[in-house]
Amino acid sequence: MEVRIALTGFGSVGKGVAEILLEQGIEYTETYGVDLVLTGIADRGGAVANPSGVELEEALRVKAAHGTVAASSRGKPGLAGNDFLREAQSQVLIEAASTNFEDAEPGWSYLRAAFANHMDVVLASKGALVLHFADVMKAAEERGARVLFSGAVGAPLPVLELADRMLVGAGITGFEGIVNATANQILSTMSAGASYEEGVARAQRDGIAETDPTLDVDGWDAAAKAVIIANAVLGGSLRLPDVAREGVRGVTRADLDDARSQGQSIKLIARAVQTGSGLRAEVKPERRPLADVLGRLRGSEMGIVYHTTRLGTVAATVAGTGGLSTALTVLRDVINLARERGWTQTPGR
Amino acid sequence: MEVRIALTGFGSVGKGVAEILLEQGIEYTETYGVDLVLTGIADRGGAVANPSGVELEEALRVKAAHGTVAASSRGKPGLAGNDFLREAQSQVLIEAASTNFEDAEPGWSYLRAAFANHMDVVLASKGALVLHFADVMKAAEERGARVLFSGAVGAPLPVLELADRMLVGAGITGFEGIVNATANQILSTMSAGASYEEGVARAQRDGIAETDPTLDVDGWDAAAKAVIIANAVLGGSLRLPDVAREGVRGVTRADLDDARSQGQSIKLIARAVQTGSGLRAEVKPERRPLADVLGRLRGSEMGIVYHTTRLGTVAATVAGTGGLSTALTVLRDVINLARERGWTQTPGR
Repeated sequence: MEVRIALTGFGSVGKGVAEILLEQGIEYTETYGVDLVLTGIADRGGAVANPSGVELEEALRVKAAHGTVAASSRGKPGLAGNDFLREAQSQVLIEAASTNFEDAEPGWSYLRAAFANHMDVVLASKGALVLHFADVMKAAEERGARVLFSGAVGAPLPVLELADRMLVGAGITGFEGIVNATANQILSTMSAGASYEEGVARAQRDGIAETDPTLDVDGWDAAAKAVIIANAVLGGSLRLPDVAREGVRGVTRADLDDARSQGQSIKLIARAVQTGSGLRAEVKPERRPLADVLGRLRGSEMGIVYHTTRLGTVAATVAGTGGLSTALTVLRDVINLARERGWTQTPGR
Repeated sequence: MEVRIALTGFGSVGKGVAEILLEQGIEYTETYGVDLVLTGIADRGGAVANPSGVELEEALRVKAAHGTVAASSRGKPGLAGNDFLREAQSQVLIEAASTNFEDAEPGWSYLRAAFANHMDVVLASKGALVLHFADVMKAAEERGARVLFSGAVGAPLPVLELADRMLVGAGITGFEGIVNATANQILSTMSAGASYEEGVARAQRDGIAETDPTLDVDGWDAAAKAVIIANAVLGGSLRLPDVAREGVRGVTRADLDDARSQGQSIKLIARAVQTGSGLRAEVKPERRPLADVLGRLRGSEMGIVYHTTRLGTVAATVAGTGGLSTALTVLRDVINLARERGWTQTPGR
């Protein structure tokens, strides 16, 4: 059946969603029995909405040319918030605005408006989850809404699905992971002989690091993901300041050379574990054996390891993902949501 | 809510299911909102059935003492098939009898009887899936029944969930995996200096190899799993003879030493790939770099790697699993089935 989606945020993730639906929307329909229709797109300049489907090619073209979808033929400068959601008439909100760790806006307001409108939400932005995790879950529960956020925690790594679908009954006691591709890329480049500055420059050239790489290199992004994963999977109520955080700025070429001479690599590890006195979370550079499930990951590869009481350690890794991987992860959440809601024509296996 | 389960086969997997429900059944109820009740257990000698729940402690004790649950106070020698399912009055069948590649019995008959009774099925046995994959799926679809079989393809590795829940939209083109723990254990033991015979003996002592290790060492088990995964994930219609199969009997200590001297290991790899002329599947020992996602796996560790067009390679590995891992995987399928059916009190995230 038709699943109408409103999209807030039209940066790389949001545009990726539109591009994928334009190019392979028919594939989703054929494979999963859902017709995914973007009925609204909002960005900082305004929005465009059409309950029968926004003209995606135009939206992408106008965004590239004018910086905002509000410049579309049906676009409205300044359209936002509840007014936007009402015009889009969708069942699902994809929130993909820039992550904001100060006040979680505009994501947090969009989330509450979506719940008030009985919509389900798929999140790519992390702000609301990091600052208001319990409130987000409570608000969703009160409205019978669902919230999925695989795109916010190391996409396309199947972090949350692994815990939710596969580790049923396993007794998860903690996790550790390489959840920030930029930091791993920088350490890999340095490990091959480059300086820290060259590592950062290369990650920027490859399009995986922002112009200001602070969030990545100082471990903020990894710490935010650790907070979200710990709260979602381990039932925690962590906040960003609860994570002991050390980034990769302090790692030197000498450190990396010394590690390699001992068959090791240095990785930025995000971790949370249940301890006698509650959840302990940290992000810090660590030495790992080269044949370790995380130690072996190079470049923009990522990995997550869950420790369980009954299934030992269960890990997932990804390598060689393309530029649309976060957008694909967001759409994966939409499909899994549609299955849970019974919106797919054929029941998922 | 209550989910009533009939269990056919009371070997290590079946007994494991009963033990887990006995010890941590309450945990499933609290965590997932389902009260899992075994209302019938059948083995070769007969069965015991009780719609309000079989006395599990007694069933395990009687099985150990007399070799069949039919010796229970409510047990009935010879009770089987449709009569058993009718007495058990369950919504779900867990089929965990010994795998039979000759005629898939008794699993195949139990499956058809379950579908006829509008039951869903969770399979741990492989026979029916290997010999009659398309028929199983067709029979289930005709009755609106669901069939889950994670326990049949390298449990507790999340082989099918990874493909189904996480690689949505990714475009899976093939997979390769270490899906037989016994063969991997034998190669690891040999790699540490033991003979093939010592490797087999140690796997038997560790309880992971059967008295007759033929199915494991000659690659039959891995080939069966390759058939099931290829058919389920890649839409194939393979049968066992379609898999080019070579086991580990031919691998020598010299081969392993030579590989190690080059920073490699030898692993029994199961693989299927889409080619221009259809699906090609094989099981054979291969050299892999020690830092490769599969090459690094030792002992009874297992792993699966999916190759995709849009998300690169996505892998999952497990290490250090306990003896109940297949039973836990079967119950994971039951929980995920209950979620799909809406039997859980709180909707799964």
